Amino acid sequence: MRIGELSERTGTPIPKIKYYLREGLLPVGERTGRNQARYGDEHLRRLRLVRSLTEVGGLSIATVRKVLGEVDAPELTTHRRLGHTLNNISTVGERQAELEPEEEDRARVAAMVERLGWTSYPLSSAYRDLVQVIAAYRQAGHPVSDASLDRYALALEEVSRVGFAEFVRITERDELLEKAVIDTVLGSALVTVLRRLAHMHISAEYQGVPDPEQPGQPDD
Amino acid sequence: MRIGELSERTGTPIPKIKYYLREGLLPVGERTGRNQARYGDEHLRRLRLVRSLTEVGGLSIATVRKVLGEVDAPELTTHRRLGHTLNNISTVGERQAELEPEEEDRARVAAMVERLGWTSYPLSSAYRDLVQVIAAYRQAGHPVSDASLDRYALALEEVSRVGFAEFVRITERDELLEKAVIDTVLGSALVTVLRRLAHMHISAEYQGVPDPEQPGQPDD
Repeated sequence: MRIGELSERTGTPIPKIKYYLREGLLPVGERTGRNQARYGDEHLRRLRLVRSLTEVGGLSIATVRKVLGEVDAPELTTHRRLGHTLNNISTVGERQAELEPEEEDRARVAAMVERLGWTSYPLSSAYRDLVQVIAAYRQAGHPVSDASLDRYALALEEVSRVGFAEFVRITERDELLEKAVIDTVLGSALVTVLRRLAHMHISAEYQGVPDPEQPGQPDD
Repeated sequence: MRIGELSERTGTPIPKIKYYLREGLLPVGERTGRNQARYGDEHLRRLRLVRSLTEVGGLSIATVRKVLGEVDAPELTTHRRLGHTLNNISTVGERQAELEPEEEDRARVAAMVERLGWTSYPLSSAYRDLVQVIAAYRQAGHPVSDASLDRYALALEEVSRVGFAEFVRITERDELLEKAVIDTVLGSALVTVLRRLAHMHISAEYQGVPDPEQPGQPDD
């Protein structure tokens, strides 16, 4: 297809497509004339991925380029490297946290991991970030209790299981890597947004908002 | 206490404390001399809150000022206004998402809310953001299935319940508002980080990483 059709089918303005091409986020099309190129389904797909990552995932062009570079790398070891890159996207650490966690924060995370029987690595960025967050709650004067922490963790374990169950159904390598990228970036937005929506529901429950479908219910 | 002690007890450099005072994030101390002021426990507490919000929550100084302004407002109606401000922090929408959701995305969110029996408002930013995220997954070529969406939503409902259970135990108004702010900002970091840590555990489970506590187990 020509660039006009690519633009139309994805709702992306042509100047933006040209920008992505210049930035290397989209592979160049097949040259068909002095100023013309032809694009295929792989361009359609890649363009949609780039837009999701930047516009909903909030990733910078530089980060998208890095992630896509690893998705496209021919080596088979890419998987582990991709995991590493993904693990470093949108971490708490990037926000130059200067809070100094104390020994008790570290001990609480270690005890939680132990109680849940989780496989985890104290040197990983996720582990260190959790220690930071626990420290931040404590320093703000509202520490999270162990009981709450366990319930939060089990809920997020379920979230992770759902993601993996979808993941293992995919057999094609390229699709698998793409899915891993999407899950990391959009998954984070999905969880954040569902949490806010759930919050609204529970809040209504606590305030005993009457159900509009059942008129007069609590007062009758 | 003097500013030096405030600095020492919170691990905050004095110039940073002065910056917060100038920016109005910290109430001025009680003047005790030409260049001296005395600070109390409320300064200690507020300073810790400000640091958590900026350094772990990643909020800008302007956003923190706005949120604290509502926490400190004397009117009793503040609660609702605070909820509104919190609801607008760190939304997907802020990232100028230009993806155009389609009718099917809206219908899927409406059906999910219906299946779960959630009280929710289609005009709220959380609802609209969820439609955006669902559209992003679809446009990226990896739509989330209804079954997965429900499981994600129920897990986040549990997260929300845990937060509320802690919330209702607090009786003092100021503490309550402070807790609401912390939960919104740090809660989001907590959920994100626990998700990454859970991911690591489930990933190890799928790859059958042997348990170091049980040497030789799977191969024996």
